[in-house]
Amino acid sequence: MDANEFRKHGHAAIEAIAEYMENVNDLPVVPKVAPNFLQEQIPADPPKHPESFDQIIKDFNDIIMPGITHWQSGKFMAYYPTGFSFPSLIGEMYASMLAGNGFLWICNPAATELETITVDWLAKLLGLDERFLSNSQGGGVIQTTASDSTFVSMVAARHRIATYYQDHKGLNLHDIAPKLVAYASDQSHSSIEKAAKVLGLQVKVLPTDSDYVLRGETVAETLEADRHAGLLPFFICATIGTTSAASVDDVPGIVKACQSDENIWIHVDAAYAGSAMVCPEFRHHMQGCADVDSFTFNPHKWLLVHFDCSCLFVKNSLALTNALTVKPYYLRTKAQDQGLVRDYSDYQLQLGRRFRSLKLWFTLRNYGQSGLQKHIHDSVGIAQLFIRRLSNDPRLELVAKAHFALVCFRLKPAVCYPCTSNSQRNGGQAASNDSRATNENGAALQATNAKMLDLLHLIQQSDIFLTKAILHGKVCIRVSFGSFKCSPEIVEHVWSVIRGCVDQVVPLDESIVV
Amino acid sequence: MDANEFRKHGHAAIEAIAEYMENVNDLPVVPKVAPNFLQEQIPADPPKHPESFDQIIKDFNDIIMPGITHWQSGKFMAYYPTGFSFPSLIGEMYASMLAGNGFLWICNPAATELETITVDWLAKLLGLDERFLSNSQGGGVIQTTASDSTFVSMVAARHRIATYYQDHKGLNLHDIAPKLVAYASDQSHSSIEKAAKVLGLQVKVLPTDSDYVLRGETVAETLEADRHAGLLPFFICATIGTTSAASVDDVPGIVKACQSDENIWIHVDAAYAGSAMVCPEFRHHMQGCADVDSFTFNPHKWLLVHFDCSCLFVKNSLALTNALTVKPYYLRTKAQDQGLVRDYSDYQLQLGRRFRSLKLWFTLRNYGQSGLQKHIHDSVGIAQLFIRRLSNDPRLELVAKAHFALVCFRLKPAVCYPCTSNSQRNGGQAASNDSRATNENGAALQATNAKMLDLLHLIQQSDIFLTKAILHGKVCIRVSFGSFKCSPEIVEHVWSVIRGCVDQVVPLDESIVV
Repeated sequence: MDANEFRKHGHAAIEAIAEYMENVNDLPVVPKVAPNFLQEQIPADPPKHPESFDQIIKDFNDIIMPGITHWQSGKFMAYYPTGFSFPSLIGEMYASMLAGNGFLWICNPAATELETITVDWLAKLLGLDERFLSNSQGGGVIQTTASDSTFVSMVAARHRIATYYQDHKGLNLHDIAPKLVAYASDQSHSSIEKAAKVLGLQVKVLPTDSDYVLRGETVAETLEADRHAGLLPFFICATIGTTSAASVDDVPGIVKACQSDENIWIHVDAAYAGSAMVCPEFRHHMQGCADVDSFTFNPHKWLLVHFDCSCLFVKNSLALTNALTVKPYYLRTKAQDQGLVRDYSDYQLQLGRRFRSLKLWFTLRNYGQSGLQKHIHDSVGIAQLFIRRLSNDPRLELVAKAHFALVCFRLKPAVCYPCTSNSQRNGGQAASNDSRATNENGAALQATNAKMLDLLHLIQQSDIFLTKAILHGKVCIRVSFGSFKCSPEIVEHVWSVIRGCVDQVVPLDESIVV
Repeated sequence: MDANEFRKHGHAAIEAIAEYMENVNDLPVVPKVAPNFLQEQIPADPPKHPESFDQIIKDFNDIIMPGITHWQSGKFMAYYPTGFSFPSLIGEMYASMLAGNGFLWICNPAATELETITVDWLAKLLGLDERFLSNSQGGGVIQTTASDSTFVSMVAARHRIATYYQDHKGLNLHDIAPKLVAYASDQSHSSIEKAAKVLGLQVKVLPTDSDYVLRGETVAETLEADRHAGLLPFFICATIGTTSAASVDDVPGIVKACQSDENIWIHVDAAYAGSAMVCPEFRHHMQGCADVDSFTFNPHKWLLVHFDCSCLFVKNSLALTNALTVKPYYLRTKAQDQGLVRDYSDYQLQLGRRFRSLKLWFTLRNYGQSGLQKHIHDSVGIAQLFIRRLSNDPRLELVAKAHFALVCFRLKPAVCYPCTSNSQRNGGQAASNDSRATNENGAALQATNAKMLDLLHLIQQSDIFLTKAILHGKVCIRVSFGSFKCSPEIVEHVWSVIRGCVDQVVPLDESIVV
């Protein structure tokens, strides 16, 4: 394909993309395909000779599209949203045009410096402490995913404590590794466990309270006991917006619990909820974040930027680069030796990197702070509408306090296992989720969870996509908003589908007291 | 920006991309900018309100473009090429349209299955052993970079030996970690050292022979000595196409040296040269690869596919997934439990992943095997032309046998340090590179290296981009071909520039006998 043929197919792609986004809500959100559906439609061997691009695009439409899960559909409410916006998409196009690899400053000065500037913009939009800005000892960097951000933070934490023990006690990493402990909560993302597993280090999962919040007291008690047992705490992850419930950990309490130990690296995973901090009304959730070592959030989730674009901010860049820099002869440059530039490959596991700051720059400018805020407000407003509908149904209850644009609900145990209804009522309306969970006997929980799986199964037959979660043993349905193709009309539709499914699982029966 | 405004700016982007690729050779390949050039041109704070996209694109052209290193220019001969082709670019556009995240099969069935099919295609195009195909116990997966591919291979290797010692000796990872050794050569890519550093494990760098090849005998001797010293070898990286010289390690010899020890994971890094294996005449370099544990190469380097797209093939998928899988409740699906599908997040460090098989599919089909072969042939032919010009200049010599499309040359020591010329001549023409290096006295090497840095500096003033390398102490200039915008005309131009610079550093002087 030469430039002229590209013009033809490129313009056609632009039209296809525009039409797709205009009509995506009409497509089935989850494809009706069985495993290995594609194998039967695509030759097992690569083509020997060039095939026409017209045929390729025809096959894309006929074979691939029916197997796509439409993340951008307003009816996609599973997992977390993945960012899309038109300026971001055009940013990706220009990045593909340049098709460079910015591992060193000299490999792409504009990409490197635009990254520094745009991550600083993000830090300011979120109200991060100024020690996370690039003109301090810290700064931000774009990683592929929050998994990567968390991973390199844990590597930096391990390097820091290993250096300390080397310098102060003459011990090497292998001497202390068996005693190192990383901490997560029972609501932390699996990437913390994965990072520790990959590094061959121990991770302890701490319990959260009835609101799925990791409390400072829990951390303080655990740290004391673990130190007493001769262990060496070196990393803790606090989450702002947990994966299942979007709960917010007690960051100030955790900071306080760790403050006497400079070898504990506090990492904040705000992969999802970080984007909400562009709105001042959510900023109170950031309390304590000025005192942590690293903070990550994914503009590619809820800030209209295409995947991949996870931002990691660290208080001390050297802690990261000391742990990650390997500089062979062929990667050394004068500008770097003189300390004039950042080589972002020293901030990540990989060497190569795409020009991801371009889509970020296009998006932040084309939306502006006010446009980003509007997107967050719209998503939260839609979630609130859904909660209002839900709250009017006597058979359903929120399992967790709804934060941001995430809603977790389930059938009330009294509906699924009626004999518990009296004890429930005796507990009174003031009973917290937690005491109710305690009161809930095993049979009631089991019955409720079984009905919930029935309900989920039924909803999955319909044309919306949402996922399950389990919160302290309670199976729930997790509805995540954030697509800019969602609307109040879609929420009303989704609600009517869900209510219809609930009707099938537990018919509205006046005799059941809930 | 709505769909209609996107149409306008999207079509404009298509025209801009086509024009860029038509004219990229006329742009200065390395930008004339100083560190922090961008800071002065972009506001320190993000915009409060939306800015027009016309203004954004104007700034892109006025501010960003002057700071871009043009990797797609035919005059870019630094590092390794980074892939570009029009079908690949359109593949990225459609992937950006769908903007999904395929961490589980259900998250994007078509993306998952297309990945399985296209990496199988690649395995067949390269002639990989069928045990690397997905219908065996092995298979391929797309990673972001070869650094990632190598890293997860090392993690799998460590997991395998740890499991062995757990099962057979009741030892845990911390018991054996201090004794684990990974092996690389002095020509291996820095990602091996980085992977070991990140994992906190020891890496030994083995010497290569005079052709920069890691020999089986070297490996065998080292393994014996290390085992005798109580160490536990667990990972070795053999390279096909080393970073500095594109040399090819003695894979059959290395396989033989390791064959008695099933705990040594043999990883082949063919990041660059793997693409050349689409041509049968290079296949002899693959000897021994049927017997290794993992093989990685980057279609995003030399196979016309946009970054990021690194393929990792493993003989035993379970070795990889056992080491990497962490499956919380919210990521469990029925299809996965039943073993019907692959969830590619279990094959990598990250959870999230882009739809990268689409650009691969578009490119492989639109070029076909014959088109891919032609691209490799063209690059190699261009390198051969460059070598012919070089060989006619009595002041220059190849430092390494030229492999694939990479050329490393330097000034002859006799030119830089004339008093060595006699001893050189006495050595006779048959002297190998190695014996010459040995004969080369310290002063001659120092003088030659100093002149080489002068030469490099001069060349860097001109409008071509190539990089330096150091090969067994000899500084050389490394010219890497592979851009599809390169041509014989450009090579003639580049050669005339280089010759002009050589003239300045060491004028052609009939009195110097070379």
